[in-house]
Amino acid sequence: MTTLLALFRRPEGGPEALAEFERRYSAEHLPLVARTPGLRNLRVQRVSEALGTETDLVIVTAMDFDDREALDAGLQSDAMRDAGRNLREIARGLSTLLVLEEAPDLLTPADG
Amino acid sequence: MTTLLALFRRPEGGPEALAEFERRYSAEHLPLVARTPGLRNLRVQRVSEALGTETDLVIVTAMDFDDREALDAGLQSDAMRDAGRNLREIARGLSTLLVLEEAPDLLTPADG
Repeated sequence: MTTLLALFRRPEGGPEALAEFERRYSAEHLPLVARTPGLRNLRVQRVSEALGTETDLVIVTAMDFDDREALDAGLQSDAMRDAGRNLREIARGLSTLLVLEEAPDLLTPADG
Repeated sequence: MTTLLALFRRPEGGPEALAEFERRYSAEHLPLVARTPGLRNLRVQRVSEALGTETDLVIVTAMDFDDREALDAGLQSDAMRDAGRNLREIARGLSTLLVLEEAPDLLTPADG
């Protein structure tokens, strides 16, 4: 499993700016992401709190693919290219996109 | 579903420091986390790349609980208290802990 993890920071402009970002993220961006070939699972979560610290992150979205090859194919699809253009429009400079790979060597059998 | 997402930044000290952190995270920390009551799923992933930018993040761990109440109970357990102490020892100042809540209102039926 390879995951594309998108971290979104709070836009400037107060609650109205955040609401507008969420509205466009939901109405414009996620439908494009959902059409990405090879996407196995899409999980969208709001940051409700940071423990022991502050954070400027507001939304975290996990997009799972079978492997890095499938992710790369997905990134080159029309859906993801459109999603990338849309992101630059609705959240320029506010997102970090991480590629995550499973780390089974860090888990011991007892970790379940 | 409520998720506790741990973001780990790269320790100073080069590859040896990262290897030592990973060794202790695997041998000491994750077994404690895995014993947390109410933990439904544990996912440990390495950051292999950040798309279009740089990142100082090296590991992302997602810990799923049924809801916020279950997470809070888990956080107050002996296992999680021990895990917290361990974290301050092996990765002081290097982690961000986010509480994430599902955002079904952002997903449209077409998003699957």
